[in-house]
Amino acid sequence: MNGAESLVRSLSTGGVEVCFANPGTSEMQFVDALDRTRLMRCVLGLFEGVVSGAADGYARMAGKPAMTLLHLAPGLANAGANLHNAKKARSPMLNIVGNHALRHLRYDAPLTADVPATAAVFSDWVRTAQAADSIARDAIEGLAVATSHPGRIATLIAPADIGWDEGGVIARPIPPHGPRPLDPQVIRHAVAALGSGALILCGGTVLEDPASTRLLAGIAKRTGAQLMAPGSNRRIERGAGRAVIPRVPYPIDMAIERLAPFRRAILIEAQPPVAFFAYPERPSLLLPEACEVIQLAEFDQDGRAAVRALADAVGARPARMTDAPRPEKPQAGPLEDLALSAAIASALPEGAIIIDESLTSANEMERLSSGAPPHSWLSITGGAIGIGPPLSTGAAVACPDRPVVVLQADGSAMYTIQALWTQARESLNVTTIVFANKSYDLLKQELFKVGANPGPDALNMLDLRRPELDFVALARGMGVPGQRVDCAAELHRVLSAAIHEPGPFVIEAIL
Amino acid sequence: MNGAESLVRSLSTGGVEVCFANPGTSEMQFVDALDRTRLMRCVLGLFEGVVSGAADGYARMAGKPAMTLLHLAPGLANAGANLHNAKKARSPMLNIVGNHALRHLRYDAPLTADVPATAAVFSDWVRTAQAADSIARDAIEGLAVATSHPGRIATLIAPADIGWDEGGVIARPIPPHGPRPLDPQVIRHAVAALGSGALILCGGTVLEDPASTRLLAGIAKRTGAQLMAPGSNRRIERGAGRAVIPRVPYPIDMAIERLAPFRRAILIEAQPPVAFFAYPERPSLLLPEACEVIQLAEFDQDGRAAVRALADAVGARPARMTDAPRPEKPQAGPLEDLALSAAIASALPEGAIIIDESLTSANEMERLSSGAPPHSWLSITGGAIGIGPPLSTGAAVACPDRPVVVLQADGSAMYTIQALWTQARESLNVTTIVFANKSYDLLKQELFKVGANPGPDALNMLDLRRPELDFVALARGMGVPGQRVDCAAELHRVLSAAIHEPGPFVIEAIL
Repeated sequence: MNGAESLVRSLSTGGVEVCFANPGTSEMQFVDALDRTRLMRCVLGLFEGVVSGAADGYARMAGKPAMTLLHLAPGLANAGANLHNAKKARSPMLNIVGNHALRHLRYDAPLTADVPATAAVFSDWVRTAQAADSIARDAIEGLAVATSHPGRIATLIAPADIGWDEGGVIARPIPPHGPRPLDPQVIRHAVAALGSGALILCGGTVLEDPASTRLLAGIAKRTGAQLMAPGSNRRIERGAGRAVIPRVPYPIDMAIERLAPFRRAILIEAQPPVAFFAYPERPSLLLPEACEVIQLAEFDQDGRAAVRALADAVGARPARMTDAPRPEKPQAGPLEDLALSAAIASALPEGAIIIDESLTSANEMERLSSGAPPHSWLSITGGAIGIGPPLSTGAAVACPDRPVVVLQADGSAMYTIQALWTQARESLNVTTIVFANKSYDLLKQELFKVGANPGPDALNMLDLRRPELDFVALARGMGVPGQRVDCAAELHRVLSAAIHEPGPFVIEAIL
Repeated sequence: MNGAESLVRSLSTGGVEVCFANPGTSEMQFVDALDRTRLMRCVLGLFEGVVSGAADGYARMAGKPAMTLLHLAPGLANAGANLHNAKKARSPMLNIVGNHALRHLRYDAPLTADVPATAAVFSDWVRTAQAADSIARDAIEGLAVATSHPGRIATLIAPADIGWDEGGVIARPIPPHGPRPLDPQVIRHAVAALGSGALILCGGTVLEDPASTRLLAGIAKRTGAQLMAPGSNRRIERGAGRAVIPRVPYPIDMAIERLAPFRRAILIEAQPPVAFFAYPERPSLLLPEACEVIQLAEFDQDGRAAVRALADAVGARPARMTDAPRPEKPQAGPLEDLALSAAIASALPEGAIIIDESLTSANEMERLSSGAPPHSWLSITGGAIGIGPPLSTGAAVACPDRPVVVLQADGSAMYTIQALWTQARESLNVTTIVFANKSYDLLKQELFKVGANPGPDALNMLDLRRPELDFVALARGMGVPGQRVDCAAELHRVLSAAIHEPGPFVIEAIL
């Protein structure tokens, strides 16, 4: 058994079921091992950003890592933007990145570059395998890191010769670290801080657990504290019967205003809210300076236990939720924000997975979908655009029985549009709604915030209208059917049909 | 004047005329400065790999750097694969990469990541600007590094606040370093090594200069030495009236066989030939072990002067070339290698720029085009696939009066297919011939070389047939007209027409 096969067999025993891959020559022995063992589902991406984003989407929905297979430093760099998003999401992920054979590295062959340095930027753990008899052990240690609470990015660099050398040894699973214990003194401190003027900012794994968010709603009701969630989250379980937790808004002035009333902030798997970017004459931190910040649970601690501890201390019970009304489908009319959002929210069936890379469009969607049937909501976590198409691909691989609906900004879609091909290849039920405002609209807003008075060159650089992108043609080019719509009632109808049909579909929504 | 404006004005005075950009919020003050000054042509890419590859193509044809404008670590990572190719090409390039404001970095905002570490992997020079009054000087120093012989990748990290702060100071141009002097003793050594059994392996700037290559041909004629070029080169000037210099073949066994006769190798702006990848039971270095290697000119030395020195020593003159016959256009018939190559070679007008990411297709093209009218030939230099569409975009920006013809593998095309949109936007005369073999054909060949006996899963991971990519639809989606062809005579006809029409065109050649 060679090193590559020992790695695949060990990871399979450790629970890894899927490999998202864009391999090259230096990974051929892993392709061969995956082929011979047939222990994992192999999903090909035509670009590495598809691979890393899909692995993130899979991890968020499956709650466990996929393996990725990437090719040297350039392939890893291509995966980097969505590895960044996954790292900020604290998604569990294990990357296997090929490198030249150890003996070959010194000769500066064309593809030689510093793989470990590339990996370090976007990983929490990096190791280079040194021998065929230890590569499986390395991978299993990486897997344990990746799956330790709440999730980490582990990258194992696999020189080609170590993959093909004989002498591979199967490694047994290693149990991951659970959450780090809470500090009883901090819990007491947090309990004392509850009440009017207090904010409970909860993120991470808490938002994935409807029991925890209902209990949080009970705490809020009992104490007068208010609940919020960070602006971007790995996954929120929401909809009818579940607590509604507003998110910190993206626009900095709105965020500052929204957070201004708070005197005490209790953070659970969340960090102090920070502006997405710095702006002239605006603070970086968004809470009022005088606000006391209590870090009840760091990211690697047990946020759900923290919620239970608070509830026990104040005698709170899970709140019975009064649901927002079920969204109504819109009349015929142009795709303005409210009608657009209503068209989508009213089409959501139970169990839908929403992938949100909407940026400046469909701003009413979050509010209108609060009363929709229970669903999952996955955001872009690290701000690296181009996550929607891959994230949805991976989520659909993890949950083949749940429809995936992507709220997709058009400019962002173009970074990883290749994911559509994988969706067609794997017959994934992903419906992507491209919000065709035909510009980097977010950047136009940002341009004004830095004090610019933009002229034609600046606006031209943020404009996607010349030539117009045709997402239906792009989708067809990758084997995905699509349709262009410009009416809210038609969007509702086409989306409803696409959700109930198997396989992918692209809707270009002309705004 | 703020820092951003001082940078733009200084670089413009330093000779930078074009900015390839995919900016984000942290670069808005640079967009604003480019807009207000109108000193540079701004070319937008919809993905950062387009930006870096286009800057490489521009540099190779213009002989000077463009500026790129990239967004934080994820944007820089997206640019990484083609920065890698540019670094291996020793193309001059100056990247301006935004970062968070210095005061904002400590708060771990979503887009925070290690920009300098990301830059270091794919750059020869990295600096982070520290103040508005020195950022222009930093950029000018980076420009001097980038333009020093033969070319380097310089990356300046620009924190947002330093761009928008007032107090920018214009910096004057700094002359770049010329080539490092040759060692007279090494020249004598090389002269003594000439004769039968000697190889002159010449790369870099030598291949860009027809006078040098004709002189090399004269040296070969006079001494019995043989000429070769590395497998991948930044740019070769070739065609009728120019010396024919065969390249070291990619397949390792063929390369070893081809190099076996040599007893002495004189290297001019080239390194000892190395296998692209390591393989089991194959050497890394391709010259025979007993072959003496004389490094006459390193990459940073003057290869053209080295050629003149050899010629002077042996009394050689530029050879009068006996041109290969002008390629003839093919009969109607399937797109087999010979007919495919003939269809393209016979359509090339004088001054064409060939972008070669053909990989496993059109293997006869190099031979058949030797007698075509004089043209430039640009290769993928670092092995990071996905260079063809962007490289051609930049080359066309540099040379608006010369037609660009791209020999494009289908799998590779998909990494940076977004470049087509920029070609349409800028009305660039780029004709892309996609060789649709519908697989990662190169990898299939590589799979066998590592000793695999591939089964269905392995072959499936290298297959692009399910679903079939439709490059004509993809092109149309980005505003580029296209046509599918499956006959050699038709390819010749469609290609000839596309070359003579302005604007981009995509030909999907069904192999």
